[in-house]
Amino acid sequence: MYFDDLPVGYSFETAERELAEAEIIAFASQWDPQFFHTDPEAAKSSPYGGLIASGYHTLLTAFTLELASNVWTEASMGSPGMDALRWLRPVRPGDRLRVRVEVTETRPSRSKPDRGITRFAHTVLNQHGEAVMTYETMVILARRPDASAAS
Amino acid sequence: MYFDDLPVGYSFETAERELAEAEIIAFASQWDPQFFHTDPEAAKSSPYGGLIASGYHTLLTAFTLELASNVWTEASMGSPGMDALRWLRPVRPGDRLRVRVEVTETRPSRSKPDRGITRFAHTVLNQHGEAVMTYETMVILARRPDASAAS
Repeated sequence: MYFDDLPVGYSFETAERELAEAEIIAFASQWDPQFFHTDPEAAKSSPYGGLIASGYHTLLTAFTLELASNVWTEASMGSPGMDALRWLRPVRPGDRLRVRVEVTETRPSRSKPDRGITRFAHTVLNQHGEAVMTYETMVILARRPDASAAS
Repeated sequence: MYFDDLPVGYSFETAERELAEAEIIAFASQWDPQFFHTDPEAAKSSPYGGLIASGYHTLLTAFTLELASNVWTEASMGSPGMDALRWLRPVRPGDRLRVRVEVTETRPSRSKPDRGITRFAHTVLNQHGEAVMTYETMVILARRPDASAAS
């Protein structure tokens, strides 16, 4: 879908993905080598009482789920940034994540009539329906060719 | 270093790391499979005129550089979140990244005297000294044992 097909209030939900312990450890060993992400034994004495996924692993899992849902993927021209990310609850081995996404702001580009900027609010949910992470992104999206000609 | 050793205004700079084309493509193939991150030929016709690193690759490279600098790593008890992330300039194959980090806020925990929350402002620089990304993180840091007893 194009910029013009995603008005404020449009929402969708992604597929679900499980994070297995081995993946959690592999990701964190490369990108976030803190013991409560990489060592199940040592993690028992951490504030989390056991192994938890790196928050960056949760973020990237959410992002790939969103891309794979293919709502705005083909119109994407990149992203200027991200706001208000909060890691609300630990993600543990075997948790299954999915993402609820809602358009909260749309702004046609003033200088470039072929694109606009869309702000998406995300809630990442686990298999119990609990929010584990929330965040906002902005994405530059191509306009529908006929729409940009008309604006 | 502990929470108490990192007052507002404390700053440090990380080591530098180069992002090679093969790494950029490998990361994006798994986590951000958009053609301007994965296909050098097709990327020439993108708004960026060539292959650029996923912004998440830049973020994780910055984070691992920060962890490896070992300033607050051992006191870390995790992070509540991240704010105001902006991808300012493309990162291209061969670019060398380093991070300037500054403490902008410190807040001892009211309920848990053994820890505090520290806010860090980050500027990721390329080899030309240009800012390619800025963002803020909050990190929960353990207090120095004598400091928490005294507070």
